[in-house]
Amino acid sequence: MLTPECPVPQGRYDRIILGHGSGGKLSADLLREVILPVLGNETLNRLEDQATCPFPAATGARLSVTTDSFVVNPLFFPGGDIGKLAINGTVNDLVVGGAEPLWLTAAFILEEGLLVADLHRVLVSMRDACLEAGVHIVTGDTKVVDRGNADGLYINTTGLGRVPPGRSLSVSSARPGDQILLSGTLGDHGMAIMSVREGLEFETVLESDSAPLASLTRAMLDACPSIRCMRDPTRGGLASTLNEIAVASSVGIRIDEASIPIRQEVRSACEMLGMDPLFVASEGRLVALVGSDDAEQCLEVMRGTEAGRDSALIGSVEAAHPGTVSARTVVGGCRIVTLLSGEQLPRIC
Amino acid sequence: MLTPECPVPQGRYDRIILGHGSGGKLSADLLREVILPVLGNETLNRLEDQATCPFPAATGARLSVTTDSFVVNPLFFPGGDIGKLAINGTVNDLVVGGAEPLWLTAAFILEEGLLVADLHRVLVSMRDACLEAGVHIVTGDTKVVDRGNADGLYINTTGLGRVPPGRSLSVSSARPGDQILLSGTLGDHGMAIMSVREGLEFETVLESDSAPLASLTRAMLDACPSIRCMRDPTRGGLASTLNEIAVASSVGIRIDEASIPIRQEVRSACEMLGMDPLFVASEGRLVALVGSDDAEQCLEVMRGTEAGRDSALIGSVEAAHPGTVSARTVVGGCRIVTLLSGEQLPRIC
Repeated sequence: MLTPECPVPQGRYDRIILGHGSGGKLSADLLREVILPVLGNETLNRLEDQATCPFPAATGARLSVTTDSFVVNPLFFPGGDIGKLAINGTVNDLVVGGAEPLWLTAAFILEEGLLVADLHRVLVSMRDACLEAGVHIVTGDTKVVDRGNADGLYINTTGLGRVPPGRSLSVSSARPGDQILLSGTLGDHGMAIMSVREGLEFETVLESDSAPLASLTRAMLDACPSIRCMRDPTRGGLASTLNEIAVASSVGIRIDEASIPIRQEVRSACEMLGMDPLFVASEGRLVALVGSDDAEQCLEVMRGTEAGRDSALIGSVEAAHPGTVSARTVVGGCRIVTLLSGEQLPRIC
Repeated sequence: MLTPECPVPQGRYDRIILGHGSGGKLSADLLREVILPVLGNETLNRLEDQATCPFPAATGARLSVTTDSFVVNPLFFPGGDIGKLAINGTVNDLVVGGAEPLWLTAAFILEEGLLVADLHRVLVSMRDACLEAGVHIVTGDTKVVDRGNADGLYINTTGLGRVPPGRSLSVSSARPGDQILLSGTLGDHGMAIMSVREGLEFETVLESDSAPLASLTRAMLDACPSIRCMRDPTRGGLASTLNEIAVASSVGIRIDEASIPIRQEVRSACEMLGMDPLFVASEGRLVALVGSDDAEQCLEVMRGTEAGRDSALIGSVEAAHPGTVSARTVVGGCRIVTLLSGEQLPRIC
């Protein structure tokens, strides 16, 4: 969407070959002809083996670090691709921790035979997502593995950010009375991927929710500095996120299923595939735990942003039953929400 | 070598299954039973999605960042394994850039079916290498891909370090008259890997030179702060490293083949496989470009360290022929040393 023109490179190779990972002439060609024209910037273009960055070190500022490998299958899906996920996913891990994102690293593992045009498409997605999040890729790496490995490509991104003095969000900070806010519909990403894999069709195409959360978290933290904890419910879904918080903070968590926004298509797809939406990954949503005095204001601020317009209050924290998550079901019963025990959604990110 | 006792975990699984990448209960088990007992530390054990580190921000200090994915095949080889490489390789990229290594991230892509005992062996290697280099793994990620991908496992490590005020090493800083120092024998790592793959046998086992270079670079920079540039000649070997410097600095580089230390077994293996040792990867060596006034002292300091005891002066920088590397051959002729043009050594790191 932010893409200035960027034609597919017309090099001597239309597919990746093992030599592109040799560290020799072909590696240099790939970098110069394919990667740098899209992702290049002053720091990356220097081609040192490491980047040196002026850390904005006001007294007490700390460095936030996060890493993720992306192995999603398929590489391209409605609403995004592996490149968009690799930038947004890592930027989101920084911002939900309260950091201002600054720099990313990008490491590619390419499969011999990958179409250079497909790689280019992924790189353009990465660049657009970087522009949108206001971050730069400062250093990188490219390896090539033999045909049959890596399903086209894997990407690792490591994110670096700055945590302002005094800010401290943590999964272990939840307290009884806190309210639980969710920034939008649940499970769109996971079911978009599964629908492609399983060939499910709906009246409207089910799109991934992959999106950057930086503007949302900035607005929230400006308005409600008392936010205890934020997390993006990716792999393992909302259920895993809430269980991690319940265990780390030694609190009980109660949610109300009827209050959780879920698209009708996601609900239908989950029913067809026998899945529980509470376990399905979102890639552009966050869960926030907020003291009860601030919850209403925080929810209002969230709803005023693009990424948070469907935000909802979905539950609260209690002292009883520490380490467990329970849900009031739509029909009024109560069930314990455990961690996902098997693997219902492999290769989702 | 530094390994305190660390038994292979006796969990319910002796092989990795897809569920270990689900983000649910099995992921949590893998982390708690297999990974954290070996790599855990105060920061990592917090299990936040990101680590917050107190950056030691003296005025003018900068952050150094480097990333590498490791896809070496086989995973275990004489002198090391993928875990040792993944720590030493990234630490070395920091220290040859003049940084003091501080923190690492570690991201694993595991193949379904990988023996947990093999993963454990790799983790123990990583821990030992971290202890030796004085760095901590502060955050990580684990994905699982279906059987047939990833050849057991891939590892990405990102390294973070601190560059002291005023220090600036760069591939673009070489100047005519600089002397070129190499810290030890060339090509041991590459030929150790190839010997295993090709089933070559010698009287003595050919071992990888994978080693941390932090003590060596510290000694060098203390004694000779005027060092222009250091690099580790990994993928693409010495030839690629010198070509990158020649191009980035717009200088000519001349080396003397007779002065380059190469083990007899490496020479023999290269001859058998039709390879040129100048293109073969080392993982525990560095090349340094030093002003001619300081070169002798620097060489002496290098030879006084464990990692640099076989150091040699191998060539010099000239103004003529900018961007090219030439070698005086053992028989007295002269040849141009280009970048590796194909892929002679796939999956070497």
